[in-house]
Amino acid sequence: MCPAAVNHGDERGYIIPIGGGEDKNTHPVILQRFVELAGGRDANIVVFPTASRLEETGTLYEEIFTKLGARDASSIPISTRADCNNPEFADRCSQASGIFLTGGNQLRLSTILGGTEVAQMIRRKNAAGTPVAGTSAGASIMSEHMMAGGESDQGPSEGGVVLAPGLGLTNAAVIDQHFSQRNRLGRLLSAVSLNPFLLGMGIDEDTAAFIDPHGVVEVIGSGTVTIVDGSKMSYTSAHSAAFNQGLGMIGLKLDILDEGCHYDLNMREAFPPTENDHRVCSI
Amino acid sequence: MCPAAVNHGDERGYIIPIGGGEDKNTHPVILQRFVELAGGRDANIVVFPTASRLEETGTLYEEIFTKLGARDASSIPISTRADCNNPEFADRCSQASGIFLTGGNQLRLSTILGGTEVAQMIRRKNAAGTPVAGTSAGASIMSEHMMAGGESDQGPSEGGVVLAPGLGLTNAAVIDQHFSQRNRLGRLLSAVSLNPFLLGMGIDEDTAAFIDPHGVVEVIGSGTVTIVDGSKMSYTSAHSAAFNQGLGMIGLKLDILDEGCHYDLNMREAFPPTENDHRVCSI
Repeated sequence: MCPAAVNHGDERGYIIPIGGGEDKNTHPVILQRFVELAGGRDANIVVFPTASRLEETGTLYEEIFTKLGARDASSIPISTRADCNNPEFADRCSQASGIFLTGGNQLRLSTILGGTEVAQMIRRKNAAGTPVAGTSAGASIMSEHMMAGGESDQGPSEGGVVLAPGLGLTNAAVIDQHFSQRNRLGRLLSAVSLNPFLLGMGIDEDTAAFIDPHGVVEVIGSGTVTIVDGSKMSYTSAHSAAFNQGLGMIGLKLDILDEGCHYDLNMREAFPPTENDHRVCSI
Repeated sequence: MCPAAVNHGDERGYIIPIGGGEDKNTHPVILQRFVELAGGRDANIVVFPTASRLEETGTLYEEIFTKLGARDASSIPISTRADCNNPEFADRCSQASGIFLTGGNQLRLSTILGGTEVAQMIRRKNAAGTPVAGTSAGASIMSEHMMAGGESDQGPSEGGVVLAPGLGLTNAAVIDQHFSQRNRLGRLLSAVSLNPFLLGMGIDEDTAAFIDPHGVVEVIGSGTVTIVDGSKMSYTSAHSAAFNQGLGMIGLKLDILDEGCHYDLNMREAFPPTENDHRVCSI
């Protein structure tokens, strides 16, 4: 599903996929930045713990966001498709100044929220300017084409990835998480091989891609964001390889972005940290 | 160490790094091709089992090469630096039409053979036209800058790779093996970050890079050869990152080559299989 259209005079809200395992205590820079984007002391944050099977997940994030200065943070206990018909939930979501999707299993998010009024509300809210952040499964669900599963710990291969329709807050990239920690470049490459119009975005733990209204990513956190651009690929064996066979792919562009790097999703171009980040170009 | 100089009128022999786990029975295409390059029915192959601690390694390859049609195949039992002074060994090596380095631990190869007459003999023989193949550790040792160790299963990181001087049959690339199987792209990227003049070459199991006298690689086998080219990298955090921190690297070129693909190490350019390989460019 394409992102919801932005109405005249509006500006799309930030989209903030987080690679899971974000620091919640010592240096919670990612969650702090999200609270600020949601309005800081005026923030009214709604948490969807739907991806998680743990009772305490919603409460945990309510406490964190309140501690980080949000005026209000409340979780919406949706765990079945029937829950999505509760008009109170859509109403609470409509008033949010920030929306957060917890980790868990992204197929719970897509199968429970998919096609409901709540999903539409999240999409419309984002198109109207409300920032939406999600960690782990909550990051993957943001894509139009969602990384639903696949093999970690192997190179790109035929059948090595399972895609499913996601929430479609962005259609620029397919998003994977726990990326370096779980060795997922292979399955990200498998996804890109299927149709190189897709950018592959792999986000490490404790790392986030803050995607601004113009489609420019800023990387924040202790790890890296890996971008695979297959648009200049001159050859792939993806259409002829046997199941599980390793894929040939010639002409991929690979950018690995650490904190302070930017990436323009429209131009497909990466930028190093500015001098204010106390880094310089080394080459 | 740079490759030994090629004398006027000579042509360098093939260099054939194999990613380990090559098929030895059902479809031994890699070892068969090596035997053919070594002279086929006239081949006189010398096997160095030095990297291995297993008694039977040398004998195993003697039997395989004989079965594949070599006239003679004998292993040279070097397991200490003192063994390298045995004039008989250098003499046998000097008569070889093909040289094979088994798997094991590449640091055994570099610490036992390094700087000896036997190492010089292998280098000079290759410069004079003798093909040298090596699998697993025997592949890594071929580089001037040898992948000696490092973390598998993580992204590129500061301190994530250990290099050591190798045999120096090629200085075009640092070679890693068991590549997809052991998730070694991270450490290969770490190696490239240290000095992007190096190409990174990661070879899967049952896969070989046949490097011809002109520096053109042909990929043979059931897996892929991954080439990382950092020469156009516009930014890396490698000089400023803390130990174990993930590295930023902008502008890497990534080619993943399956069977029949070629790669020109001098031009740094990849080529898909030709039509004779029954493949076509898909994009």
